[in-house]
Amino acid sequence: MEIINDQLAGGEHRKARVFERAWSWVQALPGKLKNKVTKVAKNTIKLGKDDPRRVIHSLKVAMALTLVSLLYYWRALYDGLGVAGMWAVLTVVVVFEFTVGATLSKGLNRSFATLLAGALGIGANHLAGLFGEQGEPIILGVLVFLLAAASTFSRFFPRIKARYDYGVLIFILTFSMVTVSGYRVEGLLEMADQRLVTVLIGGGTCIIIAIFLCPVWAGEDLHNLIASNTDKLANYLEGIGGGEYFQLPKDGKSTKVIKNDGYKSVLNSKTTEDSWANFARWEPGHGRFKFCHPWKQYLKIGALVRQCAYQIDTLNGHINSDVHVPQEFLQIVQASCITMSTESGKALKALGTAIKTMKDPKSACQHLETSKNAVEDLHIALKAASLENADVLAIIPAATVASILVEIVKCVEKISTSVHELSQQAHFKVAEPTVSPENKPQLLHRGSINPLLLDDGDDSAHVVITVDEMGSQKFSSGAKSPKTK
Amino acid sequence: MEIINDQLAGGEHRKARVFERAWSWVQALPGKLKNKVTKVAKNTIKLGKDDPRRVIHSLKVAMALTLVSLLYYWRALYDGLGVAGMWAVLTVVVVFEFTVGATLSKGLNRSFATLLAGALGIGANHLAGLFGEQGEPIILGVLVFLLAAASTFSRFFPRIKARYDYGVLIFILTFSMVTVSGYRVEGLLEMADQRLVTVLIGGGTCIIIAIFLCPVWAGEDLHNLIASNTDKLANYLEGIGGGEYFQLPKDGKSTKVIKNDGYKSVLNSKTTEDSWANFARWEPGHGRFKFCHPWKQYLKIGALVRQCAYQIDTLNGHINSDVHVPQEFLQIVQASCITMSTESGKALKALGTAIKTMKDPKSACQHLETSKNAVEDLHIALKAASLENADVLAIIPAATVASILVEIVKCVEKISTSVHELSQQAHFKVAEPTVSPENKPQLLHRGSINPLLLDDGDDSAHVVITVDEMGSQKFSSGAKSPKTK
Repeated sequence: MEIINDQLAGGEHRKARVFERAWSWVQALPGKLKNKVTKVAKNTIKLGKDDPRRVIHSLKVAMALTLVSLLYYWRALYDGLGVAGMWAVLTVVVVFEFTVGATLSKGLNRSFATLLAGALGIGANHLAGLFGEQGEPIILGVLVFLLAAASTFSRFFPRIKARYDYGVLIFILTFSMVTVSGYRVEGLLEMADQRLVTVLIGGGTCIIIAIFLCPVWAGEDLHNLIASNTDKLANYLEGIGGGEYFQLPKDGKSTKVIKNDGYKSVLNSKTTEDSWANFARWEPGHGRFKFCHPWKQYLKIGALVRQCAYQIDTLNGHINSDVHVPQEFLQIVQASCITMSTESGKALKALGTAIKTMKDPKSACQHLETSKNAVEDLHIALKAASLENADVLAIIPAATVASILVEIVKCVEKISTSVHELSQQAHFKVAEPTVSPENKPQLLHRGSINPLLLDDGDDSAHVVITVDEMGSQKFSSGAKSPKTK
Repeated sequence: MEIINDQLAGGEHRKARVFERAWSWVQALPGKLKNKVTKVAKNTIKLGKDDPRRVIHSLKVAMALTLVSLLYYWRALYDGLGVAGMWAVLTVVVVFEFTVGATLSKGLNRSFATLLAGALGIGANHLAGLFGEQGEPIILGVLVFLLAAASTFSRFFPRIKARYDYGVLIFILTFSMVTVSGYRVEGLLEMADQRLVTVLIGGGTCIIIAIFLCPVWAGEDLHNLIASNTDKLANYLEGIGGGEYFQLPKDGKSTKVIKNDGYKSVLNSKTTEDSWANFARWEPGHGRFKFCHPWKQYLKIGALVRQCAYQIDTLNGHINSDVHVPQEFLQIVQASCITMSTESGKALKALGTAIKTMKDPKSACQHLETSKNAVEDLHIALKAASLENADVLAIIPAATVASILVEIVKCVEKISTSVHELSQQAHFKVAEPTVSPENKPQLLHRGSINPLLLDDGDDSAHVVITVDEMGSQKFSSGAKSPKTK
């Protein structure tokens, strides 16, 4: 009996608790709602501040849509196009993308696919008409089935998927709509014609607004992404070079944890790079980029930068482990490791700047050379070192860090080579000599300077850097000024 | 004069060469065309063979489209829906995706967005009607502008982008179309109603065909992808464990190059995993997966597997370098390195199999334990080792490989923990003992077997493995063969 009472009491108690909880939840509701609204508002402002082009894009889409809608309200146009005018609205919503490349890709895909499918659809209708009233729907059904199956399958080809996916979709769409409508709607040709005109109006509006009103170029985004990815790795490497890992511990304590996770976003950048490079190919020449800008080379650099990021990720795990490196070993590798990471970081930074400013990346060569020399120094130091009575176990983490750094230097060299290729393909500006050409004639006119001496000066300004380890490549850097004599 | 003649001759010569080249190109054309056709045909067959579901998907889309088109030919339905029937065709083409999840996501997004935007659009029309003939287009234009801008901006929120992007698109589309048409078309309500019905017919057809005719589940694809990614890493690790890197060189020669690049595809799998997990959330329960299957946990495992792949990528660079490891050092690390890589490979393989078969992943624990013991052994061996007169430079690559292997073992442990979490969340089957319960009574009924002895045998076959380092978890694995006497 007592047990039952207890159970009853327990039940009552539980009910009361549930009620209490529900009540406190209701009481907290306005506060929660307010919090939620504040959070969303904050997020919205942050999203807009992070990239103000987002706000502009939203306004652009709204403008294009309103423009096309207003056209529809305009009597003359409405009488000409009728209900088909709706297609213009639809086209604007579907085609207008964030970047010019994506908008162009979708707009052109849509236009051509509509044209082709419309023509084929009308042809199919004529063909089916030959089979009489009974046969027509059957023939049309079979044709739709075959074309839809073949087109859908073609979307699995990686190349078609990457560039013409939307076109194939619109092709199936238009073809089935034209054949299907042809069976019922009078004046099929007129309909197809109207559809094409409205698609062109909608697509044209999008493309014009996208290109001429604060354009967002996929190519430029790709360009900046690759440069900033290179920069992120550079920051990490410079960070550990100047950081505490390679410092001899003071007071027996060392705080080696490095919190520079900026490089992590590089690890997963492949998809973005691929899609931007794909859109960039659709874009016309703009600003510093010509029509046939070597976008593929950016992907090559991107892949190498990512490979370097993988190594940095492994390095990061080792650097942040809790092992004390013995002082004697640290003294052997310290100098060369610091040079390797700092200088390869500087080389990467120079490469990133070279990409960003589209200038000759030769300033990276010197840093790269210094870091390669540090690799040599490390090898020499290690060859000479003897580790008698050394704690092998304690040495290994530092040795691993050094070894990965050597690999990173190799990787940076590959990145440098491919940035040089890009610089040649895209005709990057050759860095201006510090003795600017404008000053020279002025100097000559003064008459106080011996031309022979000037010539000498010119020669000395012409530096030939021969990089042996780069194989047959020779970099010639120097003054661009004309030799006047 | 001679020079001019030479130049002329050169010009003639060049012309002749261009002509020759053009001619040979024309001659080669049929062959080239044939090659191209053969190549495309081969690619098509390969694409179909690689994943026959692609062919089935194409046929399914074609079927859905033909079905909806035939509905349109059917008089009764046409009279009811009129030209709006075209929307059903459009919906099928746009909504039908490869996986059930994607189709459901698009179909539901489209239906709800159409419903919501249609209602709002009709409301907007009524509102604008209050402002008279002059004011109506202006009010409608302003409303379209505001809603389009806000909705377009909302697509930049990562959460909305991931799940409701298509819904927002259709929302803008339907809203502007309804408001715009409302201005001209009589019977707006009827139109909105027709549009909704046709969208539901199209979407419904897609969803039914996608689910009930050879369904392709995004969730299952994600499940298999994670399992196969784990397997790929396992193959690599087992490969180097059994490979030649850790073998003492014979005849001074060692061919250490390992050509197992299978793991490379793991490096860039994030985007695929994310999108599949996203689609999987839309899918109803199917087969072994319940409605609330913990898809997020797969992403967690996927991220760890990728981290392990980064380390393997770095390891790969070191293993394939051309450095001879000194025999004395190799002898110190050989045994534990082989065990580490082989056993962590086996552990990964067991984890992959556990995921694939949805069985308790405890068989991995033993391998993981062995590999962790090997790490201990390595530490002990290195602590005891003295490297007098050793070539430090030559040792470092092998030391690095060992050090990265230690990190990989740590990473595999993390993967194991998160697979265990998955196993608990998704209620994986506990591995059945091979002594199936049905056999026992049978054995007993024979009467020739001493129950006491059988009991004994049972005990000895029943191994209890207590894994101390895994905290409070105890794994109990059963006998593999019934002991009959």
